[in-house]
Amino acid sequence: MTITINHIAIVVEDIEKALAVYRDALGLPLDHITEEPAEQVRVAFLPTANSEIELIQPTTPDSGVAKFLAKRGEGIHHVCLEVDSVDVAIQAMQARGLQILGESRVNQRGDKYVFMHPKSAHGVLIELYERPG
Amino acid sequence: MTITINHIAIVVEDIEKALAVYRDALGLPLDHITEEPAEQVRVAFLPTANSEIELIQPTTPDSGVAKFLAKRGEGIHHVCLEVDSVDVAIQAMQARGLQILGESRVNQRGDKYVFMHPKSAHGVLIELYERPG
Repeated sequence: MTITINHIAIVVEDIEKALAVYRDALGLPLDHITEEPAEQVRVAFLPTANSEIELIQPTTPDSGVAKFLAKRGEGIHHVCLEVDSVDVAIQAMQARGLQILGESRVNQRGDKYVFMHPKSAHGVLIELYERPG
Repeated sequence: MTITINHIAIVVEDIEKALAVYRDALGLPLDHITEEPAEQVRVAFLPTANSEIELIQPTTPDSGVAKFLAKRGEGIHHVCLEVDSVDVAIQAMQARGLQILGESRVNQRGDKYVFMHPKSAHGVLIELYERPG
């Protein structure tokens, strides 16, 4: 199984204020900003040489991301690990009694993904992600 | 300025328990485990295809990492961004009023590094790191 850090997602109150740090001061390029209505967030994509940093801003007060922000404040929301097979990864988790959040889903681009429960990953919300074949 | 995600550091209570998830279930390879007496931690290095995950376990109750763990629990401790020049990055931060934690330091291998204050990076503890020239 090849594992790649696909991206690190940071939840922020205001993408434009966060860009003043991550783009203007640190020097990361801004690829684009998009709305993701399904998750009720705006996302800014800032590629690094080997991976990507995503800044995510809730667009409603009711989403999971908005509640995370209200409870824990700004900071890292999740780490996305790209794997060869999400299904194989889920089987390996479940065989060890580790908890997956819901079922795997497929987004508009055909990417398959699922989240591990942070309690099963030593406090880290991990997204497991599989590129379309 | 080229920026690379050098590693993500996760603070854990017990490296062996965390390896049961990150190595055995997720399938990340364990490169090695080392003691870092200067930081009062043990560190397990788990390379990904493009970067690295580090599991860090405090070895004393008094270190910064131990206090972080006591206060916030297990989870991501910091993200290390490799930059061309730590000095140039510090200048860019300070020119924008962003806060650096102390001075840059050089470790035994000759790597230069410094940490940004999480308040200046939207809740993320960021290590800026420069490989020896």
